[in-house]
Amino acid sequence: MSYPTIKILPGEDRRLRNGSPWLFSNELRMDEAAKAVPPGSLVRLMGPTGKILGVAHFNPHSLIAARLLTRNKDAVIDRAFIARRIARALALRERLFDAPFYRLVHAEADGLPGLVVDRFGDTLVVQLNTAGMNALEPLVVEALDEVLSPGVLIARNDTPSRGLEGLPAEVRVLKGEAGPRLEVIENGLSFAADPLGGQKTGWFYDQRPNRLFTAGLCRGEAVLDVYTYCGGFALTAAAHGAKSVVAVDGSAHALALAAESAARQGSAERCSFQRADAFTFLDEAAREKRRFGVVIADPPAFVKSRKDLGSGLRGYRKLARLAAALVTEPGFLCLGCCSHHVSPDQFAAETWAGIREAGRGGRLLRSAGAGPDHPVHPALPETAYLKFLVYALD
Amino acid sequence: MSYPTIKILPGEDRRLRNGSPWLFSNELRMDEAAKAVPPGSLVRLMGPTGKILGVAHFNPHSLIAARLLTRNKDAVIDRAFIARRIARALALRERLFDAPFYRLVHAEADGLPGLVVDRFGDTLVVQLNTAGMNALEPLVVEALDEVLSPGVLIARNDTPSRGLEGLPAEVRVLKGEAGPRLEVIENGLSFAADPLGGQKTGWFYDQRPNRLFTAGLCRGEAVLDVYTYCGGFALTAAAHGAKSVVAVDGSAHALALAAESAARQGSAERCSFQRADAFTFLDEAAREKRRFGVVIADPPAFVKSRKDLGSGLRGYRKLARLAAALVTEPGFLCLGCCSHHVSPDQFAAETWAGIREAGRGGRLLRSAGAGPDHPVHPALPETAYLKFLVYALD
Repeated sequence: MSYPTIKILPGEDRRLRNGSPWLFSNELRMDEAAKAVPPGSLVRLMGPTGKILGVAHFNPHSLIAARLLTRNKDAVIDRAFIARRIARALALRERLFDAPFYRLVHAEADGLPGLVVDRFGDTLVVQLNTAGMNALEPLVVEALDEVLSPGVLIARNDTPSRGLEGLPAEVRVLKGEAGPRLEVIENGLSFAADPLGGQKTGWFYDQRPNRLFTAGLCRGEAVLDVYTYCGGFALTAAAHGAKSVVAVDGSAHALALAAESAARQGSAERCSFQRADAFTFLDEAAREKRRFGVVIADPPAFVKSRKDLGSGLRGYRKLARLAAALVTEPGFLCLGCCSHHVSPDQFAAETWAGIREAGRGGRLLRSAGAGPDHPVHPALPETAYLKFLVYALD
Repeated sequence: MSYPTIKILPGEDRRLRNGSPWLFSNELRMDEAAKAVPPGSLVRLMGPTGKILGVAHFNPHSLIAARLLTRNKDAVIDRAFIARRIARALALRERLFDAPFYRLVHAEADGLPGLVVDRFGDTLVVQLNTAGMNALEPLVVEALDEVLSPGVLIARNDTPSRGLEGLPAEVRVLKGEAGPRLEVIENGLSFAADPLGGQKTGWFYDQRPNRLFTAGLCRGEAVLDVYTYCGGFALTAAAHGAKSVVAVDGSAHALALAAESAARQGSAERCSFQRADAFTFLDEAAREKRRFGVVIADPPAFVKSRKDLGSGLRGYRKLARLAAALVTEPGFLCLGCCSHHVSPDQFAAETWAGIREAGRGGRLLRSAGAGPDHPVHPALPETAYLKFLVYALD
């Protein structure tokens, strides 16, 4: 098998040599031949000196035009290649976790650009986020079958990143019978999730260690969790002895899942679920002078593209201000940010400014990212999207 | 009681208003009267408009000339004031930990600039790192007695930062009988430490959560821990099922403590202790083609002042390169950095460069700082000195 060759422009192979798997379109010779290569093709990357540097996925219409799969110039990207990468990712997760519930494949960091796989026991939910990985779907399915033989395999190909790659949005069951409920075990607790109709793959494993840390602060406290989604933070807090938990979300569907989980976990009596816009809820709670020992706010991304940065940062600041005003003295404020475009420093600065505007002071107990099943490619630090801050307020 | 007044220069109160407790000498009117105020005095800070903004410690000879204690302009800094701050810090730690072994007071972040207190059960080890806090020593001792009534109280006033404040280096037992050994309980394990002759206060609590995370990777593995000091990483790994542990340090005294702890924990058979320079050891181990499933290197600060930055960064890079070469394929590389002057991004970039130089690749599983008993003042993010990276290498 022979892949077409794409040439790297003089001087533009430095990042690749430093370990990065990405080449931007302005780093490649985009001549007529290159532009004619179908999006998602496998190509061989040729360095400025004529040496083949590896095999990559190529999409001439994408800003990230090439994504390296291997530095082995003779590699053939077949089912066995993908299965080896999946097996490596699995071995790492089996070292990290006791139960088969985790992000199994986290794209570039696991050597499989564009591929995300979340594991829920016998069910796998995949996202094929690039034209290249999308083209390999049959091999990915075969490789997952070879390594894990899942009972159910679902493609949640309704991610925004697929649009950038010229791919359609779709949700398909690739294997087995998928229902609207599956069980997630996280931090020893059983949750209900919806892999077909929920956000992303149905569950956010990235906050697992942050949920556990936060829950450790909640014993005996009244806890508020806005943007609770399926109750990840709220119910972990309840399970660790929160006196009462108010869980707020804009989605009735998500709250129904959270309520199911609370019933299953035996904490329903201490939990209440309220459908509301988070900012509206915080405003009203302030007017009613409600106070909580722990307030958690882990919103969806406020900054979805770079042009939203200013308004998004103001949003995080306002959220911190409104949330801080509801925290008892002393108490804890826990804030998440999953916007790629917001740096950890920016998020810390804006949330602290909001806390100050609320007339509060305090200290930062924890500044963390996603759990270890969401590893970061060391040459792509900008892909470490999750920020989570825990403040102890006076 | 009336404190002398120090004036903030026009436009220089912005950081203070944004929540910072520090004023640099070039932000204050350093007239003859100010220069005549004895180092370590309590002062009232007057803003450019003539408003009193709070009470601070003042040292006209230090770059950080004023350190705010309170924004209450009428506050009197007495034993009760200090006791309230200590009680607040204690309440936070009691929320975080089950056993009385932690950093009890972490300076600015706990509202007590210049004061560090590590708690080892009934023994407290304090550092009075500024002229201001040094001058309050009698009140600090009384306040600690009031809140905790410790059996033993030791001042480890031999820190480099005291030199910058014009204070002498000294170690004194302020209360009770201090011996050369005390017990530290960390992550459920009993360690031996030396509060009088060890580094800093005798133990580094800051790495507690990183030790636990790292140990979780070590089951069944051959583990190497260079710069082991008292065996914190090494023995936590042994307790979590490491097949064998080699612990290396340049200090015979530290290794003796580590060996004592191993005997106490019942892991001595699987642990060996070797006195050596870390770089020399790594070189020799490479020549002998030794390999370890997990390699840990948590060195003392390579960058002690800004002028050492270049050589220090090269040191971290070299350490990563030599250590990565000893890691099995696959395996784990865990690297610490406690240099204030090295940013998290710099440390990540240099260690990744070193890993690449060793011909290795991988992913970052964890990027963390100190544990929550070392909180960060949100307006002083530069005081978050500790960096800890865990790589899973291919």
